[in-house]
Amino acid sequence: MIAPELSVSQWFNTARPLDLALLRGRVVFIHTFQLLCPGCVLRGIPQAQRVERIFAGTDLQVIGLHTVFEHHAAMTPVTLKAFIHEYNLTAPVGVDQAGGDGPVPMTMQRYGLQGTPSSVLIGRDGRILHRAFGVEDDILVGARIAQALAAPVAMSDDEAAASGAAGCADGVCPV
Amino acid sequence: MIAPELSVSQWFNTARPLDLALLRGRVVFIHTFQLLCPGCVLRGIPQAQRVERIFAGTDLQVIGLHTVFEHHAAMTPVTLKAFIHEYNLTAPVGVDQAGGDGPVPMTMQRYGLQGTPSSVLIGRDGRILHRAFGVEDDILVGARIAQALAAPVAMSDDEAAASGAAGCADGVCPV
Amino acid sequence: MIAPELSVSQWFNTARPLDLALLRGRVVFIHTFQLLCPGCVLRGIPQAQRVERIFAGTDLQVIGLHTVFEHHAAMTPVTLKAFIHEYNLTAPVGVDQAGGDGPVPMTMQRYGLQGTPSSVLIGRDGRILHRAFGVEDDILVGARIAQALAAPVAMSDDEAAASGAAGCADGVCPV
Amino acid sequence: MIAPELSVSQWFNTARPLDLALLRGRVVFIHTFQLLCPGCVLRGIPQAQRVERIFAGTDLQVIGLHTVFEHHAAMTPVTLKAFIHEYNLTAPVGVDQAGGDGPVPMTMQRYGLQGTPSSVLIGRDGRILHRAFGVEDDILVGARIAQALAAPVAMSDDEAAASGAAGCADGVCPV
Repeated sequence: MIAPELSVSQWFNTARPLDLALLRGRVVFIHTFQLLCPGCVLRGIPQAQRVERIFAGTDLQVIGLHTVFEHHAAMTPVTLKAFIHEYNLTAPVGVDQAGGDGPVPMTMQRYGLQGTPSSVLIGRDGRILHRAFGVEDDILVGARIAQALAAPVAMSDDEAAASGAAGCADGVCPV
Repeated sequence: MIAPELSVSQWFNTARPLDLALLRGRVVFIHTFQLLCPGCVLRGIPQAQRVERIFAGTDLQVIGLHTVFEHHAAMTPVTLKAFIHEYNLTAPVGVDQAGGDGPVPMTMQRYGLQGTPSSVLIGRDGRILHRAFGVEDDILVGARIAQALAAPVAMSDDEAAASGAAGCADGVCPV
Repeated sequence: MIAPELSVSQWFNTARPLDLALLRGRVVFIHTFQLLCPGCVLRGIPQAQRVERIFAGTDLQVIGLHTVFEHHAAMTPVTLKAFIHEYNLTAPVGVDQAGGDGPVPMTMQRYGLQGTPSSVLIGRDGRILHRAFGVEDDILVGARIAQALAAPVAMSDDEAAASGAAGCADGVCPV
Repeated sequence: MIAPELSVSQWFNTARPLDLALLRGRVVFIHTFQLLCPGCVLRGIPQAQRVERIFAGTDLQVIGLHTVFEHHAAMTPVTLKAFIHEYNLTAPVGVDQAGGDGPVPMTMQRYGLQGTPSSVLIGRDGRILHRAFGVEDDILVGARIAQALAAPVAMSDDEAAASGAAGCADGVCPV
């Protein structure tokens, strides 16, 4: 199953919006959280920070997603911005787009996530490799990401072109 | 030094405002925090919760004080209320009154606290026994509180009357 | 109940054998362990070391007691000596005297301890204040010791004389 | 560099001696320890147990190696046997063969290990992929093992035959 696109109303820690299609060819680790969720603050976010540090030398892209599904007035972007500063989050963080008719935001709905913290691992081919609700063992998380990174990249010409566009991160976007 | 009175703009987890004068005769443990302060969330608040649990059978009064001195717009009472719910804080929590002309709130100024998390231990006689910036060793905290609780209560008639008024907590205030 | 005397076949970290009668007037914290007991190594001993450090400025006496009741051939004094060195134990440690007719050593029998790790807190008057099997919360342990230390010392002349003898620790024993 | 063979004077938790040559084709994770080494007991061995549990469904072989280089009289096989029982070690554990003329045992010498805890990761082709002194981050350890497991197995006929012999673990050794 190809990972659905993210719906994000606001980004932090990135000069331009992230787009899974443009990240095709890279492995992506998304961790979802709410800033008032104890399990996220005590376990999920620290693990994501360890993942970011350990795989800093690879092409893994770590993304935080603020999936607020309760206490909406208490977890606004103003509070999230200060939270990101105080907890020293350095990877890109997106605010999951509020859903039209319910408390659960759109990306969270699309991925069928059960709560926070959750994580999603996406392979080089854009498919969802693993989804988890709760925080899994570090060894297991490290193993799954390494396995995804070790996968050979077999690309058609079109995919290769799209993947090349990921170089945008350097500030330029070659055609 | 007699502990200065608290200036609190809003209370949570208590039917009526707390007043140090009315708590005279009891030992009081105040822990100060900001809801976006990592050291508070990871260490200070959990310790205060352990203190509350361990000394539940004594007349120790635990009080949380939300001393916001930065990111004011990010840590409003609306967010604090949800924080208290999510982190399952059960002791009374007061919002330290914003200072008139600076970012540091009034009680925090009065007690000369250096930041968050901090703690203040007040003896049965209303005097400050100990102030600490940062989270101290559990054994030490337990020892200090026990020592304060073990202190004999020597009261003048006036003090005895004031102390008796602490029974207000049950909903009535005998003269 | 007056704490029964210790039966120790060998002492480490002390120039002369310890004797509860000579420690009368001081508070004593005994932690019992077996060097191959995981709960002792991971939790009991580190707690005893924290107790020793936190109460270094008081007259609390910390004593370790090696109460081997299984795998006797595996936990000899030779191994205990290296263990004490590697884990950096600095308080006096005694080897509980092997029992005559069973695997449980004599002091452990006398105190009715259920296993390792256990702890025993003895008051200034020589009475057992608390016995615990397993490792209790640090705050609680700190509180109990502080409470014991806060107890007034009421001594008869005989007791005062015995207590004075505790000065033996400095290498001399005044009459 | 092909991993040197192990010199083991006694094995625990395995019906027959392990032999790296017979394990060719599989990934091998060796953790070395001394039973009185605090870093081994508190961090190295628990990590090895997590590795064993997480990779239980793969063909990874975990091996413990007791590399005693000090306090030899304190860490004999009798004590090691009880240690293995008390700490519930289930993977095979070998006693590194005492060196002829010094305190450092033979396998430890051959691998150039600097102390305990250490770990060695051996690839399917029998080469040393990584050596570490101290305990590394779980995520990193999980990633390295997964990467080693993901490596394709390219074997000559001879190697294939040797690898097949690894089935000996089931109690029979096909020619």
